[in-house]
Amino acid sequence: MRFTSHQRLDDTVLERSFTLGEIPGILWTSTSASVPLILLGHPGGLHAMYPRLAARARGCVAAGFAAATLELPGSGDRPRWAAAEQARADLRRALEAGEPVEEIVDRLVLPLVEKAVPEWRAALDELLVLPEIGGPVGYAGGLISIGIRMAVLEPRIAAALLFAGSFVPAALVEQARQITIPLQVLLQWDDEHNDRSQTLDLFDAFGSTEKTLHANMGGHTGVPAFEGDSGNRFFTRHLR
Amino acid sequence: MRFTSHQRLDDTVLERSFTLGEIPGILWTSTSASVPLILLGHPGGLHAMYPRLAARARGCVAAGFAAATLELPGSGDRPRWAAAEQARADLRRALEAGEPVEEIVDRLVLPLVEKAVPEWRAALDELLVLPEIGGPVGYAGGLISIGIRMAVLEPRIAAALLFAGSFVPAALVEQARQITIPLQVLLQWDDEHNDRSQTLDLFDAFGSTEKTLHANMGGHTGVPAFEGDSGNRFFTRHLR
Repeated sequence: MRFTSHQRLDDTVLERSFTLGEIPGILWTSTSASVPLILLGHPGGLHAMYPRLAARARGCVAAGFAAATLELPGSGDRPRWAAAEQARADLRRALEAGEPVEEIVDRLVLPLVEKAVPEWRAALDELLVLPEIGGPVGYAGGLISIGIRMAVLEPRIAAALLFAGSFVPAALVEQARQITIPLQVLLQWDDEHNDRSQTLDLFDAFGSTEKTLHANMGGHTGVPAFEGDSGNRFFTRHLR
Repeated sequence: MRFTSHQRLDDTVLERSFTLGEIPGILWTSTSASVPLILLGHPGGLHAMYPRLAARARGCVAAGFAAATLELPGSGDRPRWAAAEQARADLRRALEAGEPVEEIVDRLVLPLVEKAVPEWRAALDELLVLPEIGGPVGYAGGLISIGIRMAVLEPRIAAALLFAGSFVPAALVEQARQITIPLQVLLQWDDEHNDRSQTLDLFDAFGSTEKTLHANMGGHTGVPAFEGDSGNRFFTRHLR
């Protein structure tokens, strides 16, 4: 991991861009002691997502955590991934036509998870040796499929806050049953990109004995600001 | 309203029992300035419910609110109500036999709401003139049918935290569509007394643009302790 630039966002938050091999990422830390890390998931495209990610990261640091994120394969400045772009186009077309999407979702999401999860785990290896970071790790955000796979596979993830905001392949719903860490799951009740009853079934499938669903009104991007505070309280209960 | 006894629960919480006419009730206040009031709903039986109500009340006072509750018609030390007892027995029997309960729920809950809501409103009249209490009012708890009716009818109720833990007559589900105040709704995912999909339909029916569902694992009485904190944050957003 190589730090490529840094800036102070305010008196307390240091933001550093880094590359892990060829993969761009961002790390936010506080100037104070060693704290648990929260991985910030997103749908891909660090530049476009930056304002929202930086706002979430500042909330994490204010609550006593470090935060880090990584570009997804095929997104942002990373090399184009023709198969994924084709699958995205096919998904849009199928949704518009009201056709079944299961096969396309598998074709889009499963390879993405397969590629991204080892990268995020490699980033963890590097991040956790930094003196500013210590303790268990949380995963927060989408893609929910990456969050599911991380929660199943990565023992350093001790709690996860998942945004139910993307299509989840049936194979990953099956894997959700193996998850035992505490979960908080956000559902937008009128999400235009999401089937409500499938999300409720996914919530039901998670194997964790401590899992909480927070359903709020509004569409995909309308998660209320108070859920940031609520998420930090969730992580405070489980990471500190 | 007549105060009948008082005790300090600790350095900061004063608990006073009162009667409103013949109806027993309890008021918890802090020793400091005038604060918003939270009405604590419950399924009836102040003596049996006291430990849980007092714990919730102390949480309210610690968060900067006063709290009050009132015995329900036909419960605790109030005169027996033969029709309600008959309906309760019929409901138990129908549930054991797996028979439909809609008619029995109507017969049990509608008269209870009809009787209780004017009593809680009369208690509000008396409580809101006390110097320790000022500002908008919240309603927290069950019976959810009483909470629905209070939220529809009583303009002094500015926000409600509802426990989805009882059978709701169809007439009250219809009234739920008229509610516009902010709501937080608690659902126990494996509630033995509650049909999950009916509760989700009720959540969908509420007319409020700000409504949040918190679903947690476990049975009817297993609401996690952190929901107390979350409820106080909800009321802090809307009553202060």
